[in-house]
Order: sequence, then structure tokens, then C-alpha cells
Amino acid sequence: MSPSLQRKIVLVARPEGEIKDSDFRLEEGELPETQPGQVRIRNVYLSIDPAIRGWLNASAGYVEPIAVGDVIRSAAIGQIAESKHEDYPEGTWVSGLMGWEEYSTLSPQHTLRKIPEKPGVPRSYYAGVLGGNGLTAYLGLTFVGKPKTGETVVVSAAAGGVGSLVGQIAKLQGCRVIGITSSEVKARWITEELGFDAAIRYRDEDVVKELKANCPKGIDVYFDNVGGMILNDVLTRINVGSRIVLCGAISQINESELPPGPSNYIRLLTKRASMQGFVTLDYAKQWPEAAKELAQWVRSGKLLVRETRRHGLEQAPAALRSLFLGENMGKSLVQICEE
Amino acid sequence: MSPSLQRKIVLVARPEGEIKDSDFRLEEGELPETQPGQVRIRNVYLSIDPAIRGWLNASAGYVEPIAVGDVIRSAAIGQIAESKHEDYPEGTWVSGLMGWEEYSTLSPQHTLRKIPEKPGVPRSYYAGVLGGNGLTAYLGLTFVGKPKTGETVVVSAAAGGVGSLVGQIAKLQGCRVIGITSSEVKARWITEELGFDAAIRYRDEDVVKELKANCPKGIDVYFDNVGGMILNDVLTRINVGSRIVLCGAISQINESELPPGPSNYIRLLTKRASMQGFVTLDYAKQWPEAAKELAQWVRSGKLLVRETRRHGLEQAPAALRSLFLGENMGKSLVQICEE
Repeated sequence: MSPSLQRKIVLVARPEGEIKDSDFRLEEGELPETQPGQVRIRNVYLSIDPAIRGWLNASAGYVEPIAVGDVIRSAAIGQIAESKHEDYPEGTWVSGLMGWEEYSTLSPQHTLRKIPEKPGVPRSYYAGVLGGNGLTAYLGLTFVGKPKTGETVVVSAAAGGVGSLVGQIAKLQGCRVIGITSSEVKARWITEELGFDAAIRYRDEDVVKELKANCPKGIDVYFDNVGGMILNDVLTRINVGSRIVLCGAISQINESELPPGPSNYIRLLTKRASMQGFVTLDYAKQWPEAAKELAQWVRSGKLLVRETRRHGLEQAPAALRSLFLGENMGKSLVQICEE
Repeated sequence: MSPSLQRKIVLVARPEGEIKDSDFRLEEGELPETQPGQVRIRNVYLSIDPAIRGWLNASAGYVEPIAVGDVIRSAAIGQIAESKHEDYPEGTWVSGLMGWEEYSTLSPQHTLRKIPEKPGVPRSYYAGVLGGNGLTAYLGLTFVGKPKTGETVVVSAAAGGVGSLVGQIAKLQGCRVIGITSSEVKARWITEELGFDAAIRYRDEDVVKELKANCPKGIDVYFDNVGGMILNDVLTRINVGSRIVLCGAISQINESELPPGPSNYIRLLTKRASMQGFVTLDYAKQWPEAAKELAQWVRSGKLLVRETRRHGLEQAPAALRSLFLGENMGKSLVQICEE
């Protein structure tokens, strides 16, 4: 039986700029009754994604903002602890959009995906490579980036949960792959372990110069997770007919005023290139196919996965902040209880 | 027989910022011999296009810059005065890439298109609606903008040689069309004569506010001839899945340093929209189909054409400068001799 009280983290104030501890509060509160048609999920892994920072703003883009006073919305992995829905019996493992809370009580429709009973990989992978990150990398690269064998693909936030997969998938498709990342240790991970052809450390190196040296045939696909100056630098080296996938703008998501746009966007004109925004929601039909191929690659060892895992619900705000400090490697998770 | 001397306008110095009279020189020089395989064309109409300003820069984008000392390259309409090429007999009217000069001596391949003997429209139209402007408007709108019936299309430089056609073609396709232009007289022309649904005068009106009022369902296609702040304003109102056609950046072409880019480009991400550069060269296969449909529309009166015509070769630099001052209405031409 599940308890009647739970801990949860709620939004106290909309952050201006970087998030602070005082923007959040850890509360203890009563669990709502599980209504007919609902399930109660015991959350185990919270998926810490840059998108959460966007949802904290008053205008959140393509989804509703999180209301002040509400629990922080978050993708998560959990197990059904109490069920009043016949398709989701107790004990079922699921992934979905839950919250920074010990238990989420909700109606499963449109929200939950079941995790196989014996997945053959850690269940937490369903919050990363076999969840949103994997779909984002696979669908954005395949359907917007459209890389062809032999082309040059550049990806930013290359050691992150999405970027590390984008680069590996592009390698599987026979591309030359350059990753842009922050630190030496990340640069070594993506080149030595993940097989990227080169890494550029944007904090220590001249990005334009390094792009020139490492992309002798120019850039055909840029998978942009960061926006800002790096996007502007990449625009200097794009090829005729190249494709820029706008997947995130982690460098700008904390800004309350929009910084100047990329002045080199004008090269889209001379290079007849495209820059296109992308969210996985628009490719729901392709999810099953993508999920199947990603799972095969993971099981066969073609796609390597790394997790940065913190322990304890109270770590979630720090984990989120850490995404924007470049401290994170691979998929960021908060584990809030044992499986 | 054609003469042995001709007048021409050459580039004296690469302009910095706005063009000045001293960047050009009117020269008299000897006509080169017409070699076997070549023709000599008596130029009648010079097509004055913003692209010429780009060619004056050291880095001209997707074509070679004009060298200092060389004649100014220009699309033009002329008649063959002397021929050493059997496919182009004397008297044939042609359009092509010629120069600001009385006679152009060249090899016809890849350059010249013949104009029908009895075109049924003014021959000068082959420099505009039935030439580069028409192809640009038709192909850019059709293949990059992809408007659907009932959608909202916005076009900038809406009273210009390209913009005035884009808006009319979008109306023929059943769209709501809003034109952004400079003056009251232009605003009245495009709404009262060309059938645009509304005009926004960017010098006198709040563009964001007017876009909001005039595009109640948001913007599905933006055909961008100007770049800069207007692009940034349009980005505030784009719909999910919208398409921005980058066709020109007349507001930036005079700048020697790139101005800040559009900070609202980030809305491409939240709106899963695309921004794509476009030049007609990439759609050569579709030229005949486009030219045929444009000619039908012009002859049946569905597409209205207006020309701003100056007289005398020496007027060419002023005509070019005038494009950037918003003084121009419809297609800008310099007629350098009688037909």
C-alpha cells in the first residue's frame, strides 16, 4: 500500500535569469485519492532536461508553463503502485511526464509508455536513449538534418544527453562528425569512446578556426542544442543546401531578454540553406520505428550511453542548474528511491 | 553596322556602405571584335536589381564579385546587332546577363534567352515579370513558401519588382496577403490595384502591432526581401509549421559590418518553423513551367505590372541607389536607347 503523504518540489517564483534554490520549495503534502481510470506511480528516476527551464517561464513556448505553486513537471520513470485502470496493473513500469514528486497520480492516456518487463538494459535508459533524448536525436537528425553518407555533421552540447546520441547516430550513417563541447574530459570522451572525428572546446578554442580546420569540406548538417554565438560561428562554414536543426538553445534559455540573433543568418540566403525548428511531438508516427532501431543499437553496443546520476529528490534543482553550467556528461538523472 | 566605340559604366572603387557616384565612372571605350561563336547585343533595357549591390562587394555570395575596373554586370534586354553564332541571328531579341554598357559582346551559352518575336507584351517585361523577378517570385513562393489556400502570406518590399508579384501570385492561390512597404502611395497601390488584403507602412506604423491586427490567424508564409528588423518583427507572429523564404536582405546589403541577427529567430524552434535561403538558379528545371504560367497570367490580366523607368545609361547608378531608399515602385529599369 502506498502512503498518504509524499514529498514534492514546487515552483515558488518564476526565475529571472539563472535558477536559484529559492525558486523552489520542497514540500510535504497529502497524496490525492486515485480516481477511477487513474494510476498512482512511484517515481524512481527523474529525467533532468533543459526543457524544464523553459517551462518555468511565464511563456513556455509550445507547452503550458508550470504555474507558480505547482509541482515541477518532469519526464520520469516509475512503477505503478496503485491502479484503477485495467490496462496498467500494479507493478507495471512506465515512462511519462510526471513531476518532481515521490508519487504521481494521473490518467494514463497520452502520457504513459510501458517499459518492457525484461528490457535487457537499465530501466533508466527509458528516460534517455530509449526515451525523449533518443527520439529527439534520432528524429531530428533523420527527418530534419537528413544527413547523407560522407557528409559533415556538427553537433553542439555534444557530450550531453541528446548531443552524444546525435553524433553516434551520424557516425552510424557514415558521416564525418564534429562535436562542440566545453571541457577536455568531454572532448576526450566523445572522440575516444564515442567515435566522433573531432571535438572543439568552445571555451578554450577559436570555434570558427577549429571548424575550418576540422570541416575541410564545409558543414552539411548542424544539430544545434545551444543557439547563441556557436550557431553564429557555425553559419560561417555551412555548405550550399545545408540543414540546421534547431533543437534547443541552452545558451539562451536562462536569459530574460533575448540576446542578439545570429548576424550570420544571412548566409542561409547565399548558401540556400535551411534552419528549422524541431520537436519530437510532430513526428509521433515515427516514434515506434525510431524506438525500435535505437533499442537495437543500444543492445548491440553500437550506441554507447552514459548517465550522470544524482540521488535524492532534493537534488533535482541542483541537477537542473548544472545542465547550464556545462558540468553534465551524458544523460542527467535524479534517482529518488531504489527500484 | 555597329560602331567601334561605346559608352559603359565601370566600377572605380568598392563602395563602403551606401553607393556613391564616385564609385562608378562612365567611360568610352573600343568595342571588342565579335569572335566566332559570339554575338554583339545592343542593350536597350537594363534591369536594376538589388543583387547588383551585392556584386560590388569583395565577397559577393553565390556569384563572383565584379572586379574593380570592370563594367557593372546587369541583367538586360537587347537585340542582336552582329552575330557569329548561327542560333542567334541578327535582329533576335534576347534577355540575359549583360552589363551597364551600350553593347555586350559574348558567347550566348548559358546566358541568353530568346524573347518571342511577337511577345504580345512590352519587351521590357522580360527583364521583370517574365524574367528574373517573375521567376524569383513564382519559384520562391511555390517551392519554398508552399502556401496553401486560406493561409496568410506576408511579403516585404511589397511594392517592389519581386514583392508586388509575390503578393499577387499568393492571392491567385487563395491566400490572405499582407504587404509591408514604405509609403502611403505604395500601400494604396498594392491594396487598391493589386488586391492585397492589407498594407503595413513600416516607417510610420508599429509593424508588430499591425501584423497582429492584420494577421488574426498568424503568419504561415513570409517572403522576405529585406531582412533586418522587419524579419525580426514577423518572427513574433509566425505559426507552427510556417515557412520563411529568405530571398533578399535589401536592408542589410549596404552594410559593411553585419548588423545583429534577428533575436526572435528562436521562435523558429518553438514554432517548428523553417527559414530557408532561395535563389532561382537551384530551380532551373522548373523555369519553363513557371515562365509559361506567368506569361498566361500577365496576358489574361491576372498579374498587373508596373515599371519605374529611367532614361539614359548615365542614370544607372542613381537607379540602383534609389532601390535602397524605398523610392521605387514595381520593376526598376534604365532604358538606354530606343527599341
